[in-house]
Amino acid sequence: MEIITTVSEMKKSINRERDAKKNLGFVPTMGYLHEGHLSLIRRAREENDVVVVSIFVNPTQFGINEDFDLYPRNLAKDSSLAEEAGAAYLFCPEVKEMYPSGYETFIEVTEMTQGLCGASRPSHFRGVTTVVNKLFQIVKPHRAYFGLKDAQQVMVIQKMVQDLNMDVEIVPCPIIREADGLAMSSRNVNLSNGERSAALVLFRSLAVAKEMLLAGEQEARRLKGAILKIIEKEPLVKLDYVEIVNFEKLTPIEQLRDKSLIALAAKVGKVRLIDNLYWEGQ
Amino acid sequence: MEIITTVSEMKKSINRERDAKKNLGFVPTMGYLHEGHLSLIRRAREENDVVVVSIFVNPTQFGINEDFDLYPRNLAKDSSLAEEAGAAYLFCPEVKEMYPSGYETFIEVTEMTQGLCGASRPSHFRGVTTVVNKLFQIVKPHRAYFGLKDAQQVMVIQKMVQDLNMDVEIVPCPIIREADGLAMSSRNVNLSNGERSAALVLFRSLAVAKEMLLAGEQEARRLKGAILKIIEKEPLVKLDYVEIVNFEKLTPIEQLRDKSLIALAAKVGKVRLIDNLYWEGQ
Repeated sequence: MEIITTVSEMKKSINRERDAKKNLGFVPTMGYLHEGHLSLIRRAREENDVVVVSIFVNPTQFGINEDFDLYPRNLAKDSSLAEEAGAAYLFCPEVKEMYPSGYETFIEVTEMTQGLCGASRPSHFRGVTTVVNKLFQIVKPHRAYFGLKDAQQVMVIQKMVQDLNMDVEIVPCPIIREADGLAMSSRNVNLSNGERSAALVLFRSLAVAKEMLLAGEQEARRLKGAILKIIEKEPLVKLDYVEIVNFEKLTPIEQLRDKSLIALAAKVGKVRLIDNLYWEGQ
Repeated sequence: MEIITTVSEMKKSINRERDAKKNLGFVPTMGYLHEGHLSLIRRAREENDVVVVSIFVNPTQFGINEDFDLYPRNLAKDSSLAEEAGAAYLFCPEVKEMYPSGYETFIEVTEMTQGLCGASRPSHFRGVTTVVNKLFQIVKPHRAYFGLKDAQQVMVIQKMVQDLNMDVEIVPCPIIREADGLAMSSRNVNLSNGERSAALVLFRSLAVAKEMLLAGEQEARRLKGAILKIIEKEPLVKLDYVEIVNFEKLTPIEQLRDKSLIALAAKVGKVRLIDNLYWEGQ
């Protein structure tokens, strides 16, 4: 695996691979790789000739009082994990390589970013779409792999790609969970033991919602009520939102008849966690 | 010359040309082609294997009270002019092909768009960068050609390309003028005879500034004063702005020592015209 830190070197390697007619799979990450990321890399390896993984803790997607500095980093460990999982290139630029002095171009998806996490993190998705657009220009992947834990992120990126006529296939991949159900996240490492146990309430509440759905419940109001009731009992968990939305447009719905998403976010101590349940419909 | 109206057909042809290792030159226009556009197409033909011209009157770069409906159109004539000048493809999509229902992704260059035309046309450059980005994704040119009459546009697009790591060389080309000095513009056709004569004052005022520069004048204040005095005498011309800026950053300067731009915009009747003078410095 080749480790690359500059845009020009990355482009040079990519152009060589493209000239050799290789199919490129891309897994953009913020590093501190866990089994969720590794499942993306392995799948990218199965479906493409060459896999590029990027590690870049992107400052433009963090708000002023968010955890940019606290975000965990471990490039040495990430590097061997990415290689084992099948990456041919690891692109890990410094911040000033991606945003040199005088940087001033941003990409916004204006509607789909208003609700869910966009409501509590107003400039978050602008940072996400901007950096992913840049990474797509640099890596020129045929396919890019994203985990569905960040479901809104996947949909927003998909919308950007479609609106801007970009030639990359977005591949959404299932949430990977710990044995006890907690959705894997690099941020989990910042939870204390007590917070780690408390955080399980998020998955538990979604599991209850799933039971209700399987039993025929379709009313968003009742599902939301059940989730709220469960999470309220956990004093260490401060809910940000629980929303039930149409899966493609991310607009609120009252009945879960078609493809839907039950999405939630909460602060557990200093750590903001998200989780969701995808419901295929009947 | 092949005329193409859909994104998918255009991409198919482009991929064929790219696979055949052809160099692609691109001239994006809003149509009603004049000698200025044709000079871009001819230059693109000289410097590339294949030239793509696009004609698209882009609604997102017009303000609510601007001249989108009034903007002149003549696809039949444009088509033969583009072909004569050397275009291999003419891409002329409908509005709904570029902005289908639910479109919501926009690109903004935040600083360089604040002054000059950006000050009087607040969402104009957002529309320009968005449509040019889309066209670049569709046409995937090696080089794209823009006239320096819209100097701010060229610089803003150059900035977007640089910030977003896009692989396209922006080629700025000199302003083409009528025999009497009026900068060529598709909008000139909307001038009455009287307005057409009055509009000449813009070039005349810049010509006086150039004489002063050649005579050693470097003070922006005095150059601006001279220009204002000349334009004020023409009652049919309502000046929007005259600004003297650093050529690369487009920020106001007091002395014209390095590469600078004297840029102006004015309403002549219902028609908004722009013109400028590039000064290389000493």
